[in-house]
Amino acid sequence: MIDLNADLGEGFGRWQLTDDDALLTSVTSANVACGFHAGDPVTMRHVCERAVAAGVSIGAQVSYRDLAGFGRRSMDVPAADLAAEVAYQIGALEIFARAAGSAVRYVKPHGALYNRCVRDAGQAAAVVEGIRLAGGTLPVLGLPGSELHSAAAAAGLPVVNEAFADRGYRPDGTLVPRTEPGALLDDPERIIARCFAIARGEEVTAVDGTPLRLPARSLCLHGDTPGAAQLARRIRAELGGADVTLKAFA
Amino acid sequence: MIDLNADLGEGFGRWQLTDDDALLTSVTSANVACGFHAGDPVTMRHVCERAVAAGVSIGAQVSYRDLAGFGRRSMDVPAADLAAEVAYQIGALEIFARAAGSAVRYVKPHGALYNRCVRDAGQAAAVVEGIRLAGGTLPVLGLPGSELHSAAAAAGLPVVNEAFADRGYRPDGTLVPRTEPGALLDDPERIIARCFAIARGEEVTAVDGTPLRLPARSLCLHGDTPGAAQLARRIRAELGGADVTLKAFA
Amino acid sequence: MIDLNADLGEGFGRWQLTDDDALLTSVTSANVACGFHAGDPVTMRHVCERAVAAGVSIGAQVSYRDLAGFGRRSMDVPAADLAAEVAYQIGALEIFARAAGSAVRYVKPHGALYNRCVRDAGQAAAVVEGIRLAGGTLPVLGLPGSELHSAAAAAGLPVVNEAFADRGYRPDGTLVPRTEPGALLDDPERIIARCFAIARGEEVTAVDGTPLRLPARSLCLHGDTPGAAQLARRIRAELGGADVTLKAFA
Amino acid sequence: MIDLNADLGEGFGRWQLTDDDALLTSVTSANVACGFHAGDPVTMRHVCERAVAAGVSIGAQVSYRDLAGFGRRSMDVPAADLAAEVAYQIGALEIFARAAGSAVRYVKPHGALYNRCVRDAGQAAAVVEGIRLAGGTLPVLGLPGSELHSAAAAAGLPVVNEAFADRGYRPDGTLVPRTEPGALLDDPERIIARCFAIARGEEVTAVDGTPLRLPARSLCLHGDTPGAAQLARRIRAELGGADVTLKAFA
Repeated sequence: MIDLNADLGEGFGRWQLTDDDALLTSVTSANVACGFHAGDPVTMRHVCERAVAAGVSIGAQVSYRDLAGFGRRSMDVPAADLAAEVAYQIGALEIFARAAGSAVRYVKPHGALYNRCVRDAGQAAAVVEGIRLAGGTLPVLGLPGSELHSAAAAAGLPVVNEAFADRGYRPDGTLVPRTEPGALLDDPERIIARCFAIARGEEVTAVDGTPLRLPARSLCLHGDTPGAAQLARRIRAELGGADVTLKAFA
Repeated sequence: MIDLNADLGEGFGRWQLTDDDALLTSVTSANVACGFHAGDPVTMRHVCERAVAAGVSIGAQVSYRDLAGFGRRSMDVPAADLAAEVAYQIGALEIFARAAGSAVRYVKPHGALYNRCVRDAGQAAAVVEGIRLAGGTLPVLGLPGSELHSAAAAAGLPVVNEAFADRGYRPDGTLVPRTEPGALLDDPERIIARCFAIARGEEVTAVDGTPLRLPARSLCLHGDTPGAAQLARRIRAELGGADVTLKAFA
Repeated sequence: MIDLNADLGEGFGRWQLTDDDALLTSVTSANVACGFHAGDPVTMRHVCERAVAAGVSIGAQVSYRDLAGFGRRSMDVPAADLAAEVAYQIGALEIFARAAGSAVRYVKPHGALYNRCVRDAGQAAAVVEGIRLAGGTLPVLGLPGSELHSAAAAAGLPVVNEAFADRGYRPDGTLVPRTEPGALLDDPERIIARCFAIARGEEVTAVDGTPLRLPARSLCLHGDTPGAAQLARRIRAELGGADVTLKAFA
Repeated sequence: MIDLNADLGEGFGRWQLTDDDALLTSVTSANVACGFHAGDPVTMRHVCERAVAAGVSIGAQVSYRDLAGFGRRSMDVPAADLAAEVAYQIGALEIFARAAGSAVRYVKPHGALYNRCVRDAGQAAAVVEGIRLAGGTLPVLGLPGSELHSAAAAAGLPVVNEAFADRGYRPDGTLVPRTEPGALLDDPERIIARCFAIARGEEVTAVDGTPLRLPARSLCLHGDTPGAAQLARRIRAELGGADVTLKAFA
């Protein structure tokens, strides 16, 4: 049993990026942009309505406030600001999730905030404080072993591990940076094979050939790569056609 | 019995405008800026916490998306966009109101959106749709006879009339525009006398001397004028010291 | 002899919209977005460099400050603000035009500002004041008979008339609004035939069949419609292959 | 002979911060905010006009794109983006400087970008590339020994050293961080004594008592501290009344 998550709603006003309607027919969890790196209110509403109609779980994809950089630039945001900004984004999305008959089910940081919270305990704690401000005990979706997961667990929030279907891994289990060769997998067969391996708890191969196990309850697929919707459809069809159950974790 | 409302939290990041802590010791309802014309998440959180501590009712002061113009420039926002933007702002504020132990109790449009919704039925309906998206039946605070109140009433939302303590009125009950003489009252004695008149349902005087009755459940005081906090303190002291009960409507 | 202009550089950060490199092989004038409705500095720099390399004239496509609405929402911006905002945008683009070895050669308002300046003398005058602030006597590209052209001419700025290759016209020479049938032409043959007619000063047909003459020194093609680059290539090839000379006006 | 520089124009729309008109009667160089951390076009225009009238030199105070954080949060902006953003800001200010009859005379990074360029050679090089894109050979105002000065000198740009009249120094000549005691001097007598010492090339005292020499052609005064305008007036009066000539470096 595994979850398939992707970033959705990453347009802004006139600009579109992710093929939301198509992806929503395949994924089980939608990381919905909340307006800080992408995501306008009309899109947020639309994605929530479609997600609920498709039985897809809604998560808040929170980010640094950085439309110009698409949230991909690390920022030294003071902890109090970051916590409040995370809560603000969750609150905004929650309205649309509720209006659609559901609720925000989990939180996943986006881009530079995601990467930063792997190693930066201060920012990880601020994100967790933001989630707590938002009330309840929302699960945090992220990398196993990250500071974000440590902070979330310490605060009593459920943590959910994810692995990347389409990214290269280094032998230590970290991702190959986008600036290096092997960062992105683009062969659909290899991606699907890796999805099976992760779902079944089998070994995958790091960029240098080292065998590696990626414990994960969720598979992440990048929604903004060309062909993402088609790939998601294949993953869903092939995994679902085999012995793997695709099911949201939240 | 009357309510005293003021705009709060109208700074943004480094910039401060309203003396929030001082005003919160006097008003009974706080129209909290939600980030579109002013209001950063840290300030929203702070104002909500203080408002709850002071027993002040929290309202969402929703606006056009216009930080550069402080929400004072009328914009032809399509209805679907405006409705979603209103919901987004309410949702963001709701998180902080809840974290502070309360909830958003009402909605009041800000600046150009407020003025536009007096006569523009389309935008008024969009604001009301936004409030409905946000769930529940939040009261709408605004001008008697406005399109906003018509749309809200038609949608089953409670409407609350307000009158301005510090603005000049024309004989027809509309406000003297800010660009004309008599738009702003600045004599504290006159302002307080008018507060009493409104609270007791007595006549006030329009800019041309015409007697005028302003039916209102709430008095609005502008929070961004110099001396606003001191004036609010006097109003509260003098009205509360007489036969008028200052009490939030929501 | 006629000019072919299109909007370029209308992405923002991660988001792309116009196929700038392809369009620059066909158009003679590039209306470059300056950051207020679209257009980030890296894109502005890139488009200017390519435009100069391709011998394309650079114009400042100035807009209301409205990234969320792509500059398509009319705004009541006070004249002093609008003038300064127009100058700011021209100045920002001028740096990149100069660095590429050229200069800003003309100004064309975008979207809602363009439409508003057809009838609103106050905003038209503010745009013209902004152009004058920016120094020199830049030509203004716009609709014949517009308030913008009147204000520009009164201020001693050259005015250049444009006609739309791909938009429907009403019998009075105004455009069919985008919300009505016939607003957009999508048949390439009809568009090219119209380009010839306009270039030769011949009659075209309004949406109701009325014959109409569109005096124009420049043809506008919408850069953000799918297939725009291919259509521009055809227009250039067919007009250039006949007796029409495609040449920038500035 | 020394220059007195301060940050000006650091409001945004409705929000004011620096007392521009008062400071312009005292300083010799105005670091004008260009819209990325503060500074709207109307304010930029106004400050340039007043600066020229007062004989004050205009500098571009370039920043990260961060209105919400007032440019005080370090950001990992890619070099190409940063260079183009710096050029964009200089270009926008140049228009207003020219309209007022002058020109941008120098560049000084603001806040987090200033601090980052002390040690980060990559970002320093990007800022210098942005200045070169903007044409000419504008001097760079900054800290002696900074990476920014190294990059500027390597690119053939003049560098101008500044020292802080109102900030505490550590024995190694770096500033005491704002989060530590002694970061800010607030005694006007001490500040003025230090101004004299810096202007005459005499020793000042670090926060631990170590004597320290601060070679500087310009004194920086923080424009956004309360009382800044009055302090600037005193500095100008007392230095100008003694043997020190206050004069812009550019």
